Amino acid sequence: MAKLYVVGIGPGGLDQMTVQAQHVLKTCDAIAGYTRYITLIKDFTEGKEIIKNGMRSEVERCKTAVETAHQGKTVAMVSSGDSGVYGMAGLILEIVQQGDYSDVEVEIVPGVTSANACASVLGAPLMHDYVTISLSDWLTERSLIDKRLHAIGQGDFIAAIYNPRSKARPTIIDEARDILLQYKSADTPVGLVKNAYREGQQVVLTTLGEMLDHEIGMLTTIIVGNAQTYIKDGKMITPRGYGL
Amino acid sequence: MAKLYVVGIGPGGLDQMTVQAQHVLKTCDAIAGYTRYITLIKDFTEGKEIIKNGMRSEVERCKTAVETAHQGKTVAMVSSGDSGVYGMAGLILEIVQQGDYSDVEVEIVPGVTSANACASVLGAPLMHDYVTISLSDWLTERSLIDKRLHAIGQGDFIAAIYNPRSKARPTIIDEARDILLQYKSADTPVGLVKNAYREGQQVVLTTLGEMLDHEIGMLTTIIVGNAQTYIKDGKMITPRGYGL
Repeated sequence: MAKLYVVGIGPGGLDQMTVQAQHVLKTCDAIAGYTRYITLIKDFTEGKEIIKNGMRSEVERCKTAVETAHQGKTVAMVSSGDSGVYGMAGLILEIVQQGDYSDVEVEIVPGVTSANACASVLGAPLMHDYVTISLSDWLTERSLIDKRLHAIGQGDFIAAIYNPRSKARPTIIDEARDILLQYKSADTPVGLVKNAYREGQQVVLTTLGEMLDHEIGMLTTIIVGNAQTYIKDGKMITPRGYGL
Repeated sequence: MAKLYVVGIGPGGLDQMTVQAQHVLKTCDAIAGYTRYITLIKDFTEGKEIIKNGMRSEVERCKTAVETAHQGKTVAMVSSGDSGVYGMAGLILEIVQQGDYSDVEVEIVPGVTSANACASVLGAPLMHDYVTISLSDWLTERSLIDKRLHAIGQGDFIAAIYNPRSKARPTIIDEARDILLQYKSADTPVGLVKNAYREGQQVVLTTLGEMLDHEIGMLTTIIVGNAQTYIKDGKMITPRGYGL
C-alpha cells in the first residue's frame, strides 16, 4: 500500500513539531510543500526527493505528491501549523478520491495550528469559545467573509484571524475591523503575532480601536478578544470564570 | 528565576506531543495535572513529584503548582490538547498575577488541540472557518452558549463542540442540535470522535439529523460541517474551493 502523509509541521520551530511529524519526515522518501515550508524543515530534507513550488500552485503540487505515492514512494506533504486548517489535507483527499488512486493510503498527521501557537506567546487569549477565520477572498466569496465577521460580533466570540492582508486586498482587514467594532468595544484587547516560534518573532498587544496603527502583513495572525479579555503585565488573558 | 511550564500534551498518544512538551516533561522536577492526564503521560512521571487531583479542583491544583515553582522547583502543569484551549494556561497566569509570585516565570507550551486531532481522524472537516465551543454551563451562562450556537448557524461556520454532555446536563447537546437545525440542513455531516489517538478510539460519521441516535458522552468531541461539507469513502471533507 502506497502511503501519503499530510503533515502539519506546527508554527515553524522544529521543537513545536510533534514526535510523529518528525518521525514521518525522517523516514519518508519524498517531501512536498510550499517553498517557504521546505526551508523551515531543511534539517529533514537531505537525501530526499523534494517536490516544491510557489503559492497558488497547490493543486499541481498535491497532484504530483499523490502521483509520487502512487508510484510506490512514501511521501510527506507538509503544511505549516495543522494541515487540516487552511492546509493541504482536504485537497489531497479530494484528489485521491477523484482519481484512480485507491492504492494510496492517506494519513493526516495533526500539528499545532497557528491560532494556538500565537495564543501561547500572547498569554492565554483563547480560553473561551473562539472562531478561526481567514480573510483571504481568493477562494471565498467576500459576502460570506462579511457574514461571518458579523456572526463573530453577535456571538461575542474571540477571533483568530488568518491572512489579514495581501497586496491584492490591502484594505480587507480595515473593513473587517469596522464590522467587529459594530459589536465589540474599541478597548477590546487585540494581539498581533508574526513569525511565532520562528526567527524574527514579533508580538504586539493593542486594542481593536488602535490595531490599524501597527504593521499588519500577510504573515500576521490577529487574535481579537471577547468582552472579558484583558491585558495585564504584558499578557493577554481571557478568564474562563473560575472566580479567583 | 523559578519556572512553570503550562504544557499541552496533545490528544493523548505520546507521539502527538511536541518535541518541546516531551523535553519539558523529561527535565522538570514536578508534574501537576488532572489524574486522567497524569496517567496518559506515565512514561514521564518516574522520580518526579506529582501534584494531582480530580476534576473541579483546578484552582487548588494550579495554586499548588505555582507555590511549588515559587519554592524553586521547575514545574510542568499539564492539560490535554492545547493548554490554552479550555485548559490551565489562563488560570495559572491569573494566579501568578494576583499573588506575590513575580519570581515565577510562566511559559505556555502549545499542543495539538482536540479539534485538530479529531479532525485528522475524520478526514479534513475543518478546512474552512470554524468555531470551537464548549457546552459546559458550569462556568458559562446558558444564555451565552445559546447565543453562540445561533451565531454558528448564522455564519454557516463549521463547529467543533467540546464537553457535549455530562451527568449534570444530559440534554444540552439535544437542545444545541435543535438550535443548529434552525440554520443547517438535517443532512449536514457530523463526526463524533472519542479517545482520539488513545486506546479505545471511536469514530462515527453521521448527520445533524441522526447524530443523537449515537452514543455521545463527556469525552466525545463533535464536529458539525458547514453547507459544503460532505462524506465520501469514509472521510468527512470540507472543500476549500480549489475547484478540481
